[in-house]
Amino acid sequence: MTETRIAANGLLSRRHLLKAGAIGTLALPIMASEPWMKSPGQPTSEYGEPSRFARLQRERINAHPYGPAAGSSSTPLQLMNGTITPNSLHFERHHSGIPNIDPAQHHLTIFGMVERPLTFDYNDLLRYPMQSRVLFLECSGNSYQNTAPQAADMTCGELNGLVSSAEWTGVPLHYLLDEAGVKPSASWVIAEGADASGNNRSVPLSLALQDTMIALYQNGEPLRPAHGYPIRLLVPGCEGNLSIKWLRSLKLLDQAAHTREETSKYSDLMRDGVAGQFSLKMEVKSLITSPSGKMKLPEQGIYEISGLAWSGMGAIRGVEVSADSGATWSEAELQSEAGIYRAVRFRIPWRWTGQPAVLQSRALDSNGNLQPTRSDALRGHAPGLVYHYNGIQSWLVNEQGQVRNHYA
Amino acid sequence: MTETRIAANGLLSRRHLLKAGAIGTLALPIMASEPWMKSPGQPTSEYGEPSRFARLQRERINAHPYGPAAGSSSTPLQLMNGTITPNSLHFERHHSGIPNIDPAQHHLTIFGMVERPLTFDYNDLLRYPMQSRVLFLECSGNSYQNTAPQAADMTCGELNGLVSSAEWTGVPLHYLLDEAGVKPSASWVIAEGADASGNNRSVPLSLALQDTMIALYQNGEPLRPAHGYPIRLLVPGCEGNLSIKWLRSLKLLDQAAHTREETSKYSDLMRDGVAGQFSLKMEVKSLITSPSGKMKLPEQGIYEISGLAWSGMGAIRGVEVSADSGATWSEAELQSEAGIYRAVRFRIPWRWTGQPAVLQSRALDSNGNLQPTRSDALRGHAPGLVYHYNGIQSWLVNEQGQVRNHYA
Repeated sequence: MTETRIAANGLLSRRHLLKAGAIGTLALPIMASEPWMKSPGQPTSEYGEPSRFARLQRERINAHPYGPAAGSSSTPLQLMNGTITPNSLHFERHHSGIPNIDPAQHHLTIFGMVERPLTFDYNDLLRYPMQSRVLFLECSGNSYQNTAPQAADMTCGELNGLVSSAEWTGVPLHYLLDEAGVKPSASWVIAEGADASGNNRSVPLSLALQDTMIALYQNGEPLRPAHGYPIRLLVPGCEGNLSIKWLRSLKLLDQAAHTREETSKYSDLMRDGVAGQFSLKMEVKSLITSPSGKMKLPEQGIYEISGLAWSGMGAIRGVEVSADSGATWSEAELQSEAGIYRAVRFRIPWRWTGQPAVLQSRALDSNGNLQPTRSDALRGHAPGLVYHYNGIQSWLVNEQGQVRNHYA
Repeated sequence: MTETRIAANGLLSRRHLLKAGAIGTLALPIMASEPWMKSPGQPTSEYGEPSRFARLQRERINAHPYGPAAGSSSTPLQLMNGTITPNSLHFERHHSGIPNIDPAQHHLTIFGMVERPLTFDYNDLLRYPMQSRVLFLECSGNSYQNTAPQAADMTCGELNGLVSSAEWTGVPLHYLLDEAGVKPSASWVIAEGADASGNNRSVPLSLALQDTMIALYQNGEPLRPAHGYPIRLLVPGCEGNLSIKWLRSLKLLDQAAHTREETSKYSDLMRDGVAGQFSLKMEVKSLITSPSGKMKLPEQGIYEISGLAWSGMGAIRGVEVSADSGATWSEAELQSEAGIYRAVRFRIPWRWTGQPAVLQSRALDSNGNLQPTRSDALRGHAPGLVYHYNGIQSWLVNEQGQVRNHYA
């Protein structure tokens, strides 16, 4: 049976994969029993662990040379599948380490331009109406290595793993703000965390009233310390550092606070010398997670190309994949529910014939935003660290099947 | 402002909760810094851990007296929120413990009534087209304590925690069966696991071709050993033991195998002496997870009643909640996406006035199945262990605010 090729260099229709793509081999004789069948295994446990044959770890653990508590770690995207990130592998970015907070000694206070300044303890918050939403969270610095002049030879997670997804559960912030009574003159909410850096950011009131929640649970269990236990602000679709961890106060103001982290960092210096501020929304983006950097294809034949796509500007409407460096494109299958601020898994079968190939994906969101090429994404930015980089990621597969980060 | 009561004994409309339900207290002076703000916290890590102030553990760890490797453990539902279960807390049921399988030494063989018996290794399977689906998994024995004559004083997890949810990713089984070529005479697939019990079950071919997958990832990461690493059969909507862990072979037959676990166990003995077999689908069910057994309400006032609902017969269409032992009911809000074989979180605000209350929930699925009362669920069954018990769970809140399992 013939394969149905739907774009150049091996992209295949899922419908016709089957007979063309047999990977299984003629049956081996079945062993009467495998070695681990000869005696009982381990009993049940209070808290489970991964297999010793598949111990995934966060990658690219960066620590500041003068203060190792400031740093980041990345999700190993190339070893994962689906869309959810287990809490143990969710990326981290801390400005002064992870405080170990006793919830009985921690409060959230809402003050400033409000009718009734209010304080909530952890148990108070547990009694409010909650919501559960699956959301991506991406660091504004994610993929910054791809803004450098040379393509770094790294894995997908090392390059792009400052993005993760979880089902977050918490109290919509508008319930608490309504109770405190926001004064008409207020237009910003200054959120402060209880870490040693007192990390703080200014959130536009419109965002705070719309989608923002006081997150208490991540993937079903209480937040981990690394992700803000006991209380985290969560501003969906926006750069991760806006979602202040270890949240202790929300101050209503009639202007932004221009805090350290929104002046020294997280601003966008352009070639004309002007620095943009408060470019909070993360833009439409996608990544092929497999095949990807530093993998090796063992042989010619059929593989599934698979990856993640998300947008802070809406829901993902479609993802196209190219195997010939962008000359031809084909629509991938979206294999999990799309939704606003939600990462989706895309998939498309591909036959590698032993020839070089450049694999790319580009996502389109529900507001018509199309992921740009690398050069379009960098246009206008001053050289150096670029935040919010969302250019197309290219992977070069060479004739030996080795996959490498590549600038197309 | 007046509250909008939507059913008796304190059930409230979410829309009118706010002004009536203030829980926050007048602001305390904000401390200049909390204790953990005085020095840097812990740096980033390779694999994260829960807070020492919120170490959830599996509950009701049962081990067989003659072989502790046979047993079960439950998800602590009352301490969780949202719908996803972290893999470390997913319920377990093992017949001879957890084997520690090296994927390089493990194969999946499809044989019996097929044109081409085939063997797949782990890396073969990773190349096939995959799918990702959020699915509940429930042990057929879940909630069996509620079939006993007296209501046991246990937590929600101890009573009902043999149910969990995850995003499962794997290869639709029909791809592999098509490749092997199922003979027209075949009507059952006998799945066998590589644990020391060689646990095996008969799956009707229609189910195997429809929704069944060869699961490889759970919540984004490779399966844990406790849940079948490296390869698990996953038959959505059906009793958990059908989803054979550590899968090593699939044998196509023209009849069921009547294996040990489908004769000595997992059959339904009725009062008339007949034992039903292959009642595989789990029926429509819901649980209030908070407030629930062994909790104590600290004071009169507003609480969110929240819980989970699921059905192996379709998607959840609605959940009703009663605070007066079923005399009046009100529709709860479904606070996560419904979908076939998917657990949803339901929520409704409630004012506790210090009077006794019996809290109940009942779910309706997309095929019109309504969760039965306890007595309807037990009707016709012989006394003793009842599988597939899905009767309404009642929690009695007494005048001291103590919550207890209750038969209404």
